[in-house]
Amino acid sequence: MPDLPRRVHLHEEGPREGFQMETRHIASTDKVRLIEALAGTGLAEVQCVSFVNPERVPGMADAELVAQSIRRREGVRYTGLWLNLRGMQRAMRTQLDIEGTIGTSASEAFLLRNSGQGLSALREAQRQTLAYCVDHRIAVTRGIVTTAFGCNFEGPVSPATVVERVAQMFEVMAEFGLRLPILRLADTVGWATPRSIAAVVGAVRERWPDLRLGLHLHDTRGTAMANALMGLQMGIDTFDSACAGLGGCPFAGHTGAAGNICTEDLAFMCEEMGIETGVDIDALIDCAQLAEKIVGHPLPGKLMRAGTLARFRQ
Amino acid sequence: MPDLPRRVHLHEEGPREGFQMETRHIASTDKVRLIEALAGTGLAEVQCVSFVNPERVPGMADAELVAQSIRRREGVRYTGLWLNLRGMQRAMRTQLDIEGTIGTSASEAFLLRNSGQGLSALREAQRQTLAYCVDHRIAVTRGIVTTAFGCNFEGPVSPATVVERVAQMFEVMAEFGLRLPILRLADTVGWATPRSIAAVVGAVRERWPDLRLGLHLHDTRGTAMANALMGLQMGIDTFDSACAGLGGCPFAGHTGAAGNICTEDLAFMCEEMGIETGVDIDALIDCAQLAEKIVGHPLPGKLMRAGTLARFRQ
Repeated sequence: MPDLPRRVHLHEEGPREGFQMETRHIASTDKVRLIEALAGTGLAEVQCVSFVNPERVPGMADAELVAQSIRRREGVRYTGLWLNLRGMQRAMRTQLDIEGTIGTSASEAFLLRNSGQGLSALREAQRQTLAYCVDHRIAVTRGIVTTAFGCNFEGPVSPATVVERVAQMFEVMAEFGLRLPILRLADTVGWATPRSIAAVVGAVRERWPDLRLGLHLHDTRGTAMANALMGLQMGIDTFDSACAGLGGCPFAGHTGAAGNICTEDLAFMCEEMGIETGVDIDALIDCAQLAEKIVGHPLPGKLMRAGTLARFRQ
Repeated sequence: MPDLPRRVHLHEEGPREGFQMETRHIASTDKVRLIEALAGTGLAEVQCVSFVNPERVPGMADAELVAQSIRRREGVRYTGLWLNLRGMQRAMRTQLDIEGTIGTSASEAFLLRNSGQGLSALREAQRQTLAYCVDHRIAVTRGIVTTAFGCNFEGPVSPATVVERVAQMFEVMAEFGLRLPILRLADTVGWATPRSIAAVVGAVRERWPDLRLGLHLHDTRGTAMANALMGLQMGIDTFDSACAGLGGCPFAGHTGAAGNICTEDLAFMCEEMGIETGVDIDALIDCAQLAEKIVGHPLPGKLMRAGTLARFRQ
C-alpha cells in the first residue's frame, strides 16, 4: 500500500451533521458540551452549527447561541456551514472561524431541491459569494462538490460530469484570481463504492494533478469505511467525519442520508494502519458516548462499544 | 483495481452466528423460517446451527430440531459448525451437508479458552478428526485459522505465527494424504485492519501461492467492509458473512465479538463494483428485516434501511 498518506486531517462534523437531523429537541448547552469535548480530543477542526433557514431545519434555530457559547480552545478551528451569503453573514457575527466556501453539484436536480437554484443561478451565487469574500478579505478555502458519486433525483453521475462542474466552478474562481487549496468530493446521498471513488478521484486527478482532494462520505449503505480505504490508497488525506456516526440515525427509522463516516472508527483504522491522525481515540470514544447520551438513542459507531486494542497490547 | 475477483462466494452464517449470541429465547420455527428465506435468495451455502455444548451455548440447544425441520431447496448447501468430533457426529445424524473441518488458532491462549486444549492437544484432535473423516469417506473441505489477526488474550499476532500454525495443520493433513481446497483466515475478535489483512494474506500466499483463501470478518471496530475491500483487491473470492450483521448486537450492550460482516452490505458493494455474487440483494434485505423482527432489536446492517440503488436508476 505505497500511496497511503503519512497523516490524515479529520474535519469533525458531528455536531452540525448530527443535531440538524434529530427530530427531538436538543438543548443548546448539550450541543456546546459536545463541541467542547470534541475540541479537546486533538481534532484540529470542529464544525459546530449550520446557518440555514430555521423553518426548514428547526434543530439549527439556536445556531448563533451555540456558536457564541463555546469556550474556544487554542489551536482548534470552529467552523460552520451555510448555503448562501445570508448564512455566511450570520456566521460572521459569531466567534466561528470563517472560511470562504464555494460549492457545486454534480446533479442539477439535487441543486434545485437543496437550494432552489439551477446551474446558471448557482454561477451567479458563486460570483456574489466570491465578490463578497474578496471585498472582505476572506480566504476562499472550502470547496465542495455534492452528489459527486450519484444522486437520488438524477441517478448515476459520471466522472466526466463531476470534472465539468468543477471546471465551471474553477472558471468562476479564476475570474476573481482565486484558486482552491483543497476540493472535497461529497457522497451526499450514499451512492459511492470503492469503484466510483476510484473513478471520480481518478478523473479529477487526471484533469488537475496537483489539486488536493478530500472526501465527505456517508455510510448510508455500509460502504463508508471501504470508500475511505480506497481514498487513502489514492493518497487522500482529508476526510469530513462525524463522531459516533452522528447525522441521521438509521435505527430511529429516519430516511434519507445516514450519518457521516464515524470519526473514531476512521481514526482507529488510520492509526492501526500507521497513518497519524493527531487525535486521542479514547477521548473520541468518550465524545461518542456523550453524543449518544445527548441524542437519547443508539448511534451507529462501532469502536465506541468495542474500545481500542491498546488494553490488549500491554 | 486489476486483482478483483470476477465473482465472490458468500457463506451465510447469520442463523448460526446470530442465534447463538442472543440472550432471549428464539423459537426454533423462527430460526427455520430465516434459514429457508436465506436459502431462497440465491446464496449457495447457509450455516444453520452449531453443535456445541448446550450448557455453554443455550441458544443452540435446539440444533438438531432446527436442522431436521428445514425444507431443503435444491442447489443450496446447509452447513453446521462444531468444535470437536462429538459435535460432528451430532451433525451427521441430521440432514445437514457434512464437511470435514479442520481448524487451528494463531493464539494458543484463545484455543485454551475456546476449546480447553493447547497446541499439542489440538494436533491430536486434528488427527482424530481426520482419521474419522477418512474412515467415513467425508471430504475435508473446511479449514480455518482463528484469531489470525490478533487475540484479546494473547495480543498481536504476527503473520509468521499464522504461517507456522497453518504449516503444522497442513503437516497433520499430509499424514493422511489430504490437502485443503480453501483456507479461511478468521478475524475472530475484530482486530483486523486493511494493513493486517494485507500482511497476513500476503505471508500465507507467499508460502502457499496456489492455496485459495477466504476471510471470516467481524465488524467489531467498524473495519469489516474495508477489510473485505483489501481482501477483494488481493483476489480473495470467499467470505463468511451474516445477514443484517447478525451475531452479537452491539446495541444491546453485549460485549465480545460483534456480528460478522453484513451479507447484504457486502453483496451490494461487490455488485456495485462489478463483482458477481449470485444473490438477489432485495431478497437479502427482506431476510435482514425478518432477522431483526425475530431477534426483536435493531441489527447493524445498513443496506436493509437504505435499500439498493436500483429504484433510482430507472
